[in-house]
Amino acid sequence: MEPAIHKEEHLRSSQLLSDIVIGMSDGLTVPFALAAGLSGAVSNSNIIVIAGIAEIAAGSIAMGLGGYLAGKTEQDHYTSEVKREYYEVDHLRSREIEETKEFFANIGLSEKLQEQATEEIANDKDRWVDFMMKYELGLEKPDPKRATKSALNIGLSYIAGGIIPLSPYFFINNSTDALKISVVATLICLFVFGYFKSKVTGVAAFSGAVRVTLIGAMAAAAAFGVAKFFENH
Amino acid sequence: MEPAIHKEEHLRSSQLLSDIVIGMSDGLTVPFALAAGLSGAVSNSNIIVIAGIAEIAAGSIAMGLGGYLAGKTEQDHYTSEVKREYYEVDHLRSREIEETKEFFANIGLSEKLQEQATEEIANDKDRWVDFMMKYELGLEKPDPKRATKSALNIGLSYIAGGIIPLSPYFFINNSTDALKISVVATLICLFVFGYFKSKVTGVAAFSGAVRVTLIGAMAAAAAFGVAKFFENH
Repeated sequence: MEPAIHKEEHLRSSQLLSDIVIGMSDGLTVPFALAAGLSGAVSNSNIIVIAGIAEIAAGSIAMGLGGYLAGKTEQDHYTSEVKREYYEVDHLRSREIEETKEFFANIGLSEKLQEQATEEIANDKDRWVDFMMKYELGLEKPDPKRATKSALNIGLSYIAGGIIPLSPYFFINNSTDALKISVVATLICLFVFGYFKSKVTGVAAFSGAVRVTLIGAMAAAAAFGVAKFFENH
Repeated sequence: MEPAIHKEEHLRSSQLLSDIVIGMSDGLTVPFALAAGLSGAVSNSNIIVIAGIAEIAAGSIAMGLGGYLAGKTEQDHYTSEVKREYYEVDHLRSREIEETKEFFANIGLSEKLQEQATEEIANDKDRWVDFMMKYELGLEKPDPKRATKSALNIGLSYIAGGIIPLSPYFFINNSTDALKISVVATLICLFVFGYFKSKVTGVAAFSGAVRVTLIGAMAAAAAFGVAKFFENH
């Protein structure tokens, strides 16, 4: 049993990491860009703080509950598909036999082995349905607590990410001055975050960090430009 | 060949739909909630329009480029894993044989069939690697143009979604009046959007629509409350 338990834990920790990555990458980027954009249009930090906090509240709830909904949908979908597979195994047995044979044909087994393997699998109904779920439909059994955990992890990561670019505006009244510190602090954080994100997802860490930082910078520059343009028109 | 082509097309259209869903659900929700939040703090629509446009610019770029990055990462990951599998098939053949046998053991085949099926698969190296990629690692070959298309689809859907809640503020100078129209228009759009989203993902359409609408309403209410609180403190 040990390798299975190990794999399970590995999976769980990577789901947590993926939630954090989802929440934090948007949390660092969008409030940062919004505050930068508003700095191009208003000189007083006060309104930027309010807009930033409203955005963090809105974004964390939208993303967190979005994650919850996605998890729930995944679960509902899995449950309804399991039901259907059991029905099909009972009532459309010959079609399911064909589909199972087709799977073995696709991976390259000979006609003879296709027959034999299908026969063996079809002997145990539960196992057969499990097999069809995983390899015909590509669906993994979702963790029932995942939706709630996902919502919390994503929402909190968004808040944690969003506070960083916003905090200079709390203390510095002139928005242009606050923006300078916000840019430096956030780009450093984006780089560090991008570095670890790349490590976790297994791509080249340095170029991954550069990519993440560039996205944040581009979003902020675009927001700044657009806000300045609309302020003057 | 016909069923395979059909399946491929089905997959492609569902990726487009999934991009639109990702972009539009956040686009409808976050700018809506931000504008609602700011309406709780400022009475002139002008600043809300600027903040809203800055947010749409920031959000669409962050999400669009985020989608691009995710697509690129998926591709890099796939390429590096294919390379590794070829290396392992050449240099760690006995371990790969064990892993392949394990796969067949897990789906419930007898010892004898495990041996035979593994032997047949290991005969054709390309096919074997394909098999390991798909069923040991659970990785599908990604479409090379997917990253760019994904970025555009997500970004444009975010903009399309974001313009709806923001448009009343363009024409109505008093933010509280604009908010009322924005709430009605956006909640209707969220409901319609949630309905089609649920249809596409195969869950109960009406309750799915209610869920999506509730998330948007909660995000907007929270942003409104938080902004009002900070404005008074």
